[in-house]
Parts: sequence; structure tokens; C-alpha cells
Amino acid sequence: MLTVFGSVALDTIRTPTRILRNTLGGAATYAAISSSFFGRPGLVAVVGNDFPNRYHTLLNRFADTKGVIYARGRTFRYDGSYDQTLSYRTTNKTELNVLKDFKPVVPQEYRKSQFVYLANNDPIQNTRILKEFDKVKFSMCDTIEFWISTKRNDVIKMMSVVDSVVINDEEAKLLTKTHNLIKAARKIMEWGTKYIIIKKGEHGSLLFYDDMVFPSPAFSIENIVDPTGAGDSFAGGMIGYLSSKHSIKLSTIKEAAVYGNIMGSFAVEKYGVYGITRLKKSNIRERFGYYRKMVHF
Amino acid sequence: MLTVFGSVALDTIRTPTRILRNTLGGAATYAAISSSFFGRPGLVAVVGNDFPNRYHTLLNRFADTKGVIYARGRTFRYDGSYDQTLSYRTTNKTELNVLKDFKPVVPQEYRKSQFVYLANNDPIQNTRILKEFDKVKFSMCDTIEFWISTKRNDVIKMMSVVDSVVINDEEAKLLTKTHNLIKAARKIMEWGTKYIIIKKGEHGSLLFYDDMVFPSPAFSIENIVDPTGAGDSFAGGMIGYLSSKHSIKLSTIKEAAVYGNIMGSFAVEKYGVYGITRLKKSNIRERFGYYRKMVHF
Repeated sequence: MLTVFGSVALDTIRTPTRILRNTLGGAATYAAISSSFFGRPGLVAVVGNDFPNRYHTLLNRFADTKGVIYARGRTFRYDGSYDQTLSYRTTNKTELNVLKDFKPVVPQEYRKSQFVYLANNDPIQNTRILKEFDKVKFSMCDTIEFWISTKRNDVIKMMSVVDSVVINDEEAKLLTKTHNLIKAARKIMEWGTKYIIIKKGEHGSLLFYDDMVFPSPAFSIENIVDPTGAGDSFAGGMIGYLSSKHSIKLSTIKEAAVYGNIMGSFAVEKYGVYGITRLKKSNIRERFGYYRKMVHF
Repeated sequence: MLTVFGSVALDTIRTPTRILRNTLGGAATYAAISSSFFGRPGLVAVVGNDFPNRYHTLLNRFADTKGVIYARGRTFRYDGSYDQTLSYRTTNKTELNVLKDFKPVVPQEYRKSQFVYLANNDPIQNTRILKEFDKVKFSMCDTIEFWISTKRNDVIKMMSVVDSVVINDEEAKLLTKTHNLIKAARKIMEWGTKYIIIKKGEHGSLLFYDDMVFPSPAFSIENIVDPTGAGDSFAGGMIGYLSSKHSIKLSTIKEAAVYGNIMGSFAVEKYGVYGITRLKKSNIRERFGYYRKMVHF
């Protein structure tokens, strides 16, 4: 089983072509939905009592929501705007709301999870919650600029206790204070993580293990409408696939990185979560097959 | 046979770790040397009477220099500085010198070349010189921001008469006025070019043909010291390989794009041209084999 811990949000996303207000978002939302195509995950998160029923119903279609707590107050909200090229996002407003005093608890049924994904939460919280699981086979965490800037040492501590780190290229550079991604990955490995996956957006990803690099180009998409959640969908697809295989062989991890890219490519094709909520398993299998042919030479 | 037409320069390259003054450079220099590992190319270029003998000797080791004209005046000079990350270059000075009034002539022996590479020259000159060849099987051109900004229509005309275009991602976007590289490639194809290769620096390249995309990640290099000439080495390696195979099958063109990436990866590992002048064929074969394993999943 896979457990996903992270934020469920109400997002306001401003793209050059459309504005979505209070739409379902959050790192854990994207990761859980993306992973669900490989097996139903458990979701640990908090929402406010303003969280729309229809979104709860939607989440429940993809994930076990026993771990989703309703707290008094408003749901975490994020408001961001993309530029014309959809390459840069500026944050207009972040309201932590119920996320602020959330003390996550792992439901009894989730404690046996062998696969655990810790989204871009407070690194101290991520480190603590990981201990609540009884027999983790493979854990993965993400982080963001905010934690790197405010709690760098805790980010490093978190990375020393997980099996793998997924991180954006710019954040990997910021965290490790280097411009070269190989050097960045090596530094994170020195802190104790075995597998590093650096996400490069439209340029795909790099998986590092020991002395090996596995570059996986992105599945090229002509009509990108909303990049929100692409990285979280990547992570969810990757660990979801691993969990479905009950395997952490290197060859499986490589395939998982490709599935991550595939799920990210679906995420950007539609607004909000709808790039991944309307998928069928056959769409994913088909794109994976196409991808294999695409990169072959 | 392959003929390379373009600039031979004396470069001043300022990197964070070293400054090279009046070192051998130029698009045709890199492309010709890079291609030479697959077969000796003919070089059409002009230098001034200040061009050092040792550089002529060096060029002659890799290419036929019958087409290199000595003109009265100083050799074309370029002076540029890289930032700390080696990702951005600013031009300090460009002195056209003998390049200004150069009327290129293709030596009789080169006219039978079936493969022709037209570096980032004046697009009108590129279009005209292509007609001097008797039976071109595969032609390839590059271009740069300067020509896109000053002679866009001539760039488009040039692209309508060649078989393939290699171009940087930023320049492809500028030329086609779009942010999406698939759309950019499609637009260039509409102008009449069959194969488009978009170079993305450390992110590798995308080859477009018809409805097909072939992404080829870069060979990851930990110690990049000087990115100068990487793109020209890419183009030279690519068309050099094609020329050696006497083939323009799609599968060969894909392999050629990978060889382009490989040659670019060698170019950035040492200062100036010395990343590619000190290579053996076996180094290239070995890295190609390693690359194939690296991307396999």
C-alpha cells in the first residue's frame, strides 16, 4: 500500500487563457490522484469545513480518505499567476489556514504502508510522520524553496532518512548551492538518500543512483494549458508504479521515472486536476508504449 | 564528402575559471573538427593575414583547407563572457574584419559534396553557396539571433531550400514567434525544411520529422568548463556521421542526433577547441555505447 501525506488545497490559478478560482489543488491531491492509477493510495491531509463536498467525493474516487481530517477553519488556499510562456509562476497569496496547526496522524490501517510519499510539507513534520509507519520499504519526499530558505538543516535531516528525493532543478541547485545537477545530486546522496530524481519540467527528469544517471526526456506536449501539479503528478505516478510492482529494483525505478514523466505530461494538458482525473489506465499504458518507441534509436 | 561553410575566428572567451585570448574559434572550425572524426571535410572560410600558422596547421590536421582563403586584413574576432553558471554569454565585441566583404567560392573539388553544412552565416550567402554544389543529398543550416532580427525573411528563404535546420531553442522561439518547441518546429517545416533539430544545451535536443519527435537527452557532464562551440560541434558531429554512412534514413538521422549530443558533450569539457581536438575515435564510440546504455529502460 502507498500512503501520500501532503496538502489538499483550494487553488486560484491564473493562466493566460483561463482563471480557475478555488479549484481543487494541493500537492497531495495531485500525487494521490496520479498514483491511484496504479493502486488506491491512502491520503493523510487536512481540509477546512468550507471544503466542498464535491471535491471530497472526487478525492474519494481515487484515494482512501480516512486520513483526511476536517478541521475548524478555512481550507489551505493558494493563488498564483503564470506568465505568457507558462514557464514562470508568481505567487499572489498563500493562506495556510487549517494547515497551520495541523498535527497529522496516520490512521491505523495506513501504518503498514510499504510505500510512503511525503509531499512538500514542513520537513520536521515529514521526518516525524515517517516514523509512524511500521515497515517502510521505499519512502520519497519533495521540498520547496520556502523550506530550503527557512529550514535548510531540517530539509537535510529529512533527506537523510528517506530512500529517495524528488526535487525541481532550481530547488536542487538552491539547496545544494551548486549550478551543476550532477554535483547537486551527489551532495544530496552524501546526506544519506539513495535515489535522487531531479525534475526539469519540459526537459524531463534525471534519476541518480550511485554513479548512474538515467535521463528521461519529457513526453513532448504541443498544447500545454496549465502546468500546476505536474511535479506532484510526476512523483505520484512514480511511487504509485513502484508500489504496484512491490519492487525497488533499479530497472523498475527507471520505468517508474518514465511513468512519472508520463503522468506529468497528462497533468499539463488540461486545467487544474482534470488532466489526470479524466484518464483511463489504457491512456497511460498507451502513452508509455508510445514513449518507449519515441526515445528508441 | 562533406563541405562545411562558415566562420573561422580568433575568440576571446572569458569564463569564471579562465580567460582565453585570441584562441582558435568560429562555427565552421568547431563543426569541421567535430565532423572530421567521421570523415575528412572540406572547409570554406576566410581568415586574415594575421591568422597564426599554428592554427592553420591545426585546422589542416582535421579538414581539407583548400577552401580557406587568406584575405588582406584581420581575422574575424569574437569576445564573449560567461556568467558564473556558464549558462549565459554576453558579447563584449564582434569584429567582422575580413568576413565583411568575403565572397565565398566553393573549390572545384568540393562541388561534388553530397553533404553540406552551412553554419550561422548570412542567410543570403548560405542560400547562394548551396547552389554551387552539383548533387547535394543532405544540406543543413544553422542561424543566430542576429540574422533572425535583421534578415528574418532571408532566414526563412534559406530554410526553404535546405533539408534540415539545426537551431537553438531560444532562437527557434524567436524565429517562429512561439513559446512551444513543437509548434516552432512545425512552423519551420511549413517553410519547407524536412528535418528540424532543436538544440537545448544541457537538456539535449529534439529532432522533428513529419509527425515524429525524437528527444535525445544530453550526455550529463559534471565538469563543464567552456560551452563555446558545443552547438557547432553538435551540428558537425551530426552531419559528419550522416556523411560517413552515406545515408539519410530516419534511423540513421536519429543516431546522428545522438552523435551530435556526444560531440557537444566533449566540446564543453575543455577550453576552446581542445575538448574535441584531443579526441580519439575510440573515445567517441565508447561514449556512444555508454549513452545507449544510459538511456535504456
